[in-house]
Amino acid sequence: MVKVSVYIGTSLDGFIARENGDIGWLDEANKNVTPGEDFGFNNFIESVDLIVMGRKTFEQVKVFDNWPYMDKRLIVLTTKNLQIPEKLERFTTTSSTFVPEKLISELSDQHVDHIYIDGGLVIQEFLSAGLVDEITVTIVPIIIGRGKSFSKLVSKDLHLNHLKTTVYEFGFIQNKYRITKLIKG
Amino acid sequence: MVKVSVYIGTSLDGFIARENGDIGWLDEANKNVTPGEDFGFNNFIESVDLIVMGRKTFEQVKVFDNWPYMDKRLIVLTTKNLQIPEKLERFTTTSSTFVPEKLISELSDQHVDHIYIDGGLVIQEFLSAGLVDEITVTIVPIIIGRGKSFSKLVSKDLHLNHLKTTVYEFGFIQNKYRITKLIKG
Repeated sequence: MVKVSVYIGTSLDGFIARENGDIGWLDEANKNVTPGEDFGFNNFIESVDLIVMGRKTFEQVKVFDNWPYMDKRLIVLTTKNLQIPEKLERFTTTSSTFVPEKLISELSDQHVDHIYIDGGLVIQEFLSAGLVDEITVTIVPIIIGRGKSFSKLVSKDLHLNHLKTTVYEFGFIQNKYRITKLIKG
Repeated sequence: MVKVSVYIGTSLDGFIARENGDIGWLDEANKNVTPGEDFGFNNFIESVDLIVMGRKTFEQVKVFDNWPYMDKRLIVLTTKNLQIPEKLERFTTTSSTFVPEKLISELSDQHVDHIYIDGGLVIQEFLSAGLVDEITVTIVPIIIGRGKSFSKLVSKDLHLNHLKTTVYEFGFIQNKYRITKLIKG
């Protein structure tokens, strides 16, 4: 079985971005973060074998000076003809026939143990398919009113087992859960 | 100045109820709560002078065997001709001219120090008006996908100062914040 993890930041009212995708509020809040604090992200990345990412998220991260994903294999989900920078050319893209279950099945055949999925739509699709095993949500101390929900496509309740909470002195709260089962919503 | 507090439970994705108002998922989750655990609610109620509540919420709580609000004064916001049970007849109702700022002003004149507001719409309106001072959110370990948001009417970001986090052994997480200022969203 492939373990699937989600690792996101949200506002207190549960949004990962404004309705237009803007995450300026998150960048602004990050200015209060103690320098060097990575919210456990490096340890988390070390624990994964592969990253699956939406195209929009990839377009945002591919220009980062500091590539945050170590040398991990990365699959970009896209229906477009994607320009991948030379330094990242080892990464795969998929076609429009993407089905979460099929990808997991293929990765399982390749003996991949643990994947990290990122990007709003990708997270929504995997959560909706009941394929996410662990979710780490770092709550930023802000209420933004409206925005994109990570759970928009979920039609059956996902029950959670709380694993860990970390309180940061600058007011962020990180909660980690195991997703236990699907129950009719 | 009247201090205004909100005290709610949400799913991990930030909802206080399903879209149709159903909170069965919350009742179900409460079965896992250690008997006698009140999430600090009694201490909180002791600290308030008065409760302001929406009509729908009042209709739900007025039938409770155990009245959870001690002998605190209660104002029900309603545009309807409300039947109030005899035992609760001391409570006031307001008319359709309700304006959050006006109510706060009146209560200030009456030297009320601390009010607790409850009900989805009431919370939305006070938050939107920038009139809430403290918010306590108990996160229930469930993702429900869609539902009513407590922050729906907020059009300017509300910045929060984290005050306290309590982790309960059955997986609920309670976060308490002070709302610091309005910044253009």
